[in-house]
Amino acid sequence: MNDDFLCIAIDALGGDNGPATVVKGAVTGVNENPSVKIYLCGNEEKLNEELSLYDYDKNRIVVTNATEEITTHEHPVEAVRTKKDSSMVVALKLVKDGICKAFISSGSTGAILAGGQFVVGRAKGVKRTPLAHMLPTSKEPSLLLDCGANVDVKPEVLVQFAKMGSIYMENVVGKKNPTVAIVNIGTEEEKGNALVKATIPLLKEAKDINFIGCIESREIPNGKADVVVAEGFVGNTIIKLYEGLSKMLLKEIKGAMMSSFSSKIGAVLIKKSLKNTLSRFNARNAGGAPLLGLKGLVVKIHGNSKEDEVISAIKQCIEFIDKDVSGKIIEGLSQEIEAENDDIQN
Amino acid sequence: MNDDFLCIAIDALGGDNGPATVVKGAVTGVNENPSVKIYLCGNEEKLNEELSLYDYDKNRIVVTNATEEITTHEHPVEAVRTKKDSSMVVALKLVKDGICKAFISSGSTGAILAGGQFVVGRAKGVKRTPLAHMLPTSKEPSLLLDCGANVDVKPEVLVQFAKMGSIYMENVVGKKNPTVAIVNIGTEEEKGNALVKATIPLLKEAKDINFIGCIESREIPNGKADVVVAEGFVGNTIIKLYEGLSKMLLKEIKGAMMSSFSSKIGAVLIKKSLKNTLSRFNARNAGGAPLLGLKGLVVKIHGNSKEDEVISAIKQCIEFIDKDVSGKIIEGLSQEIEAENDDIQN
Repeated sequence: MNDDFLCIAIDALGGDNGPATVVKGAVTGVNENPSVKIYLCGNEEKLNEELSLYDYDKNRIVVTNATEEITTHEHPVEAVRTKKDSSMVVALKLVKDGICKAFISSGSTGAILAGGQFVVGRAKGVKRTPLAHMLPTSKEPSLLLDCGANVDVKPEVLVQFAKMGSIYMENVVGKKNPTVAIVNIGTEEEKGNALVKATIPLLKEAKDINFIGCIESREIPNGKADVVVAEGFVGNTIIKLYEGLSKMLLKEIKGAMMSSFSSKIGAVLIKKSLKNTLSRFNARNAGGAPLLGLKGLVVKIHGNSKEDEVISAIKQCIEFIDKDVSGKIIEGLSQEIEAENDDIQN
Repeated sequence: MNDDFLCIAIDALGGDNGPATVVKGAVTGVNENPSVKIYLCGNEEKLNEELSLYDYDKNRIVVTNATEEITTHEHPVEAVRTKKDSSMVVALKLVKDGICKAFISSGSTGAILAGGQFVVGRAKGVKRTPLAHMLPTSKEPSLLLDCGANVDVKPEVLVQFAKMGSIYMENVVGKKNPTVAIVNIGTEEEKGNALVKATIPLLKEAKDINFIGCIESREIPNGKADVVVAEGFVGNTIIKLYEGLSKMLLKEIKGAMMSSFSSKIGAVLIKKSLKNTLSRFNARNAGGAPLLGLKGLVVKIHGNSKEDEVISAIKQCIEFIDKDVSGKIIEGLSQEIEAENDDIQN
């Protein structure tokens, strides 16, 4: 009986490291979490071959065959619509049909966003579904949303993002009464573009969120807010610059350490301390990026994910389902809809 | 006779380090550049007292008294309008009146942007005046514009920014045929928000620029384009995240180096190599941020600028004036206006 288990569908293809990595992560995920059952979608033969290498509870990993694969080079919407038997669409359908409550993939971001909306579908009351990312900061990680699933949205949509982000941080990450800030080009309210200026008063009025005002992007790395709300174009720019700049700076510092004999010895001496520090800034330890506001949970992990990231994404899905975050989002947004209706009637 | 000299007005107040730093920078600037004459604006008595500490050609530093100061806590437009005898407005007026060709200040960014537009005024044909920043990258520095002087602009405005940025990079920085890219949330043209989608075809058609397509923010630190064009809200988010994230990461790395006895020894051994690497990423060595498209050059330097940054800003102004960048911008944009008129007539 599936009722006894918390079921997660995993797209075993689409990542850079192939199904072997996903299988390894899934096996560890099942072994570490007794409540979990995993549906692995991809080439049945290949997956069974990989699975035969491990010891695990055979009742809790189900292989679901899929004959096609969606690659990052394809047009996302087109690929989701035409490749009905791809590992991604097959896995998403398991969520749509209620067999699984969550989905994990390291495949094409665009296809995951499209598939989440077209196959799984938006939850009741949700205007747009934001892609959220945990950002490493000098304090606790912050949740940034929307990281690019939507562009040119209305102020009411950003308010919904703030609510969904708060519910996620409180329930999945365990942050009580998380602070919410909106990205702006100054901390003063009179600054900003038309969208941000129109959104600020709505965020102030919004119940159930702990809105603390505007945040300039320079303060994001200092962890000044638990939930950082931005329009998708801006959020996408932030997440990609965060990744690109960190990578470039660390590469340059490594280069400097390898540039002379004495610096190489120095590098050996600081290696341990540096590793501890940098592991905090490793996005892989923060789980995947959830696409919020769907009828089930859709989680995107990096294309080059190793098994660690698969395992942490599985844990993330468990928290999400255990705490009924989907239900809380629908409940939170339905209060908003009732309030709107009240306004119209009064 | 001023005709013989290249005159620059410097706002000696407004920065965190007071007039002493500005005076020191101005004296070195004059001593290192025989063609330069500097107008220092601020409290006459204080400035003369500081100047008395140095040897320099007395004909080439003029003190212009100003009795007021604009602080960063004031409303920028209001401050520029009411504080007519502030060091900033007095210095900007020297440019407006044609006595100086360039202006440097470490004061309030908002006031500099407002003052540049209201006091100096836009050059003929310029729709909006972008704030440009040199960004350190793993290759040569890139010019990012607009860093927040304008928001919610039209596609034609971004095309002008691309042209002004190209002229600046070619003439002031000496980069031949600089590559231009527009910040987008994907490299494919069908991605992006309405503004970017509408701007791409115009950039493709634009003459006199070397447009290479879209750039994702993660590629900016790798120096993939010489001129990076963005709408002001996005550009401001990029420049502030660049500064904030670099600062936070370097602080964490320093912390790691100081965390144990052996790591401290390691830190001493890699110090020299690391310093060389990091000096490339020091924004201070790249000069100030020019506000382009005005009748004269307005340069903003950091609020906590040391004399080095004053000196490099002076050199930047010399290149700008020597190469007649203002004239080239007006010429470049007037060709655009003629082409538009031709289109209307045909």
